[in-house]
Amino acid sequence: MKIARFAVDGMEFHGKVEGDSLRVIKGSIYEDFGLSGLTYPLSRVKLLAPTKPVTYWGVGENYAKHVNYRMEEMGESFRPRAAAFTPWHKGVGSLIGTGDTIIIPPDADWIEYEGEICVVIGKPCFRVTEEQAPDYILGYTVTNDIGTGPTWARSDFSLWRVKSCDTFGPAGPWIETEVDPHGVDIIVRVDGKEEDRGNTRDMIHNCYEIVSRISRHMTLHPGDLITTGAPGLTRPLKDGEVIEVEIPEIGVLRNPIAALKE
Amino acid sequence: MKIARFAVDGMEFHGKVEGDSLRVIKGSIYEDFGLSGLTYPLSRVKLLAPTKPVTYWGVGENYAKHVNYRMEEMGESFRPRAAAFTPWHKGVGSLIGTGDTIIIPPDADWIEYEGEICVVIGKPCFRVTEEQAPDYILGYTVTNDIGTGPTWARSDFSLWRVKSCDTFGPAGPWIETEVDPHGVDIIVRVDGKEEDRGNTRDMIHNCYEIVSRISRHMTLHPGDLITTGAPGLTRPLKDGEVIEVEIPEIGVLRNPIAALKE
Repeated sequence: MKIARFAVDGMEFHGKVEGDSLRVIKGSIYEDFGLSGLTYPLSRVKLLAPTKPVTYWGVGENYAKHVNYRMEEMGESFRPRAAAFTPWHKGVGSLIGTGDTIIIPPDADWIEYEGEICVVIGKPCFRVTEEQAPDYILGYTVTNDIGTGPTWARSDFSLWRVKSCDTFGPAGPWIETEVDPHGVDIIVRVDGKEEDRGNTRDMIHNCYEIVSRISRHMTLHPGDLITTGAPGLTRPLKDGEVIEVEIPEIGVLRNPIAALKE
Repeated sequence: MKIARFAVDGMEFHGKVEGDSLRVIKGSIYEDFGLSGLTYPLSRVKLLAPTKPVTYWGVGENYAKHVNYRMEEMGESFRPRAAAFTPWHKGVGSLIGTGDTIIIPPDADWIEYEGEICVVIGKPCFRVTEEQAPDYILGYTVTNDIGTGPTWARSDFSLWRVKSCDTFGPAGPWIETEVDPHGVDIIVRVDGKEEDRGNTRDMIHNCYEIVSRISRHMTLHPGDLITTGAPGLTRPLKDGEVIEVEIPEIGVLRNPIAALKE
C-alpha cells in the first residue's frame, strides 16, 4: 500500500494512493486504520513530506562506492569517520515534500544530491534486534539527502549546516508499506538525464541493522525517518535545475533547485 | 512572567505561574494570549518540558573554564572543535521535564551534568541580526545538557549518542520571559550539595549571537530550544543521586538519576 500525506482545501490528511486518486484514511496511520469514502484526484492536492517526525536520522558512508568517492574528496583524515557507524540528526526543519524547492544557501560551496531509500518507523522502538526491526517499520519512502560541499563538511563536526539547512531533506512522494528495501534501484536524474544509479542490495549496514543500532541507544518514534545513505557519486546542483530521485517500487521524488541571493 | 507547560486530569496546558498556582493560558504562547479563570495548584500538576520543539540545539565550548576542562580531558586533537562555532542537534526525543528520571545507559562510560541557560524561540526566525535576535526570543529556561564520557565523545563525530540518548535533555521548570540572560548564576547541586557555580556573563558567544548565527543557515521555529553551554566543570553522576540546576531568576530543574541494567 502507498500512503501519502497531503493538503487540500485548507485541510491535511493521510490517504491511500489508488491510481490517480487519494482515499482519505480514517484514524492514525500508526494504528489499525480505516478508509473513508472521501477521495481526491492527485492532481488537486499538494503532497507533503509523508510524516511529521520527532527525529530525522541520516546514515552516511553506507555503500562502498560512495565511501571511496568521499575518501578521495575528503582525504585520509576522513577514514575513521567513513569506517564508523555514526548516524546524525538531520534537522526536522529541513524536511520538505515532492514538488517543493530546494534552496542553495549563498554561503555554501555548493549543494549536491544523494538519492536514498528512507525507513519510516511505525511503532515506538527501543532496543530491538535486527530480527525484530521489520515489525517496527511502517514502510519506506524516497529521500534526497542534500548536503553542501567540503568546506562545511570539514569544519562542522556535527554536520549542522552541511546536512540540515532549510529544504535539505526532501522526502516523498509517499510511503510504500510492501517493498523489500534491500533489492531496489535508486535512480537520480537531473533535468531528465540519468546521473546516477545504484541498488540497495549493496548497503553496508542494512535497514534492519540500522534500526536496531539506533534503537539500542534511543527510542525511535512513529513517523521518524532514517535516510540510509547514497549508493554512488554526486555533483553540484545549479539554480534552475530539477532533480528527481526514483525508486521504481516506491515512486519519484522531484524537486526544483533555486539559489538564495544574499 | 513565568510560563509552564503541564499535565493535569488527562489534559495538557500552558499556564502562567502565580505563586503556588498555575493559571491556564488561553491561546498559543507564541501569539498574543489571554488568561483564563481556571487555576490549578502547582502541587496537583505534572510539569512538562516547557515546549514541544521542532529542533533542540546544543552549543558547546562556550565558556573559557569549560573549554580548558575539555581540552585537558580530550587532548590536543580537540582544539579545532573547541575553537569552532559548531552547534549540534540534541535529539528532541531526549527532552524531559523537571522531576523526570535521567537514565544512565548500560554501555556508556558514564553520564555527566552540564547546567545551562536555554533560549526559547518565540517566532519563526531566519537570518536575523544580533540586534534583532531578542525580538524572536520568548524567554529562557534551565537545561541540564547531559552527556556521556569520552569514549563516545571521541568516536561519535556527530555526538549522536553522547548528547541525545533518551532523557539526556531535561528542561524546565518553566520559561521566564523577563530575565536578562547574560548576568545570571547557574548553580548545580547533587543531593543538595553545591558542585559547580558559574555566571552567564562569561559566555563566549552570547544568546543573541547564537540565535543570529544559527538563523543565518536555517529557520528557528516557535518553541525551539537552544542550550548554550556549561560554564564550568562536571563529574559522573551515579544511580540514585538527585541533580538540581538552578538559575535563581528562573527556577530549579530537579531530576533523579537511575541506571538502566542490560
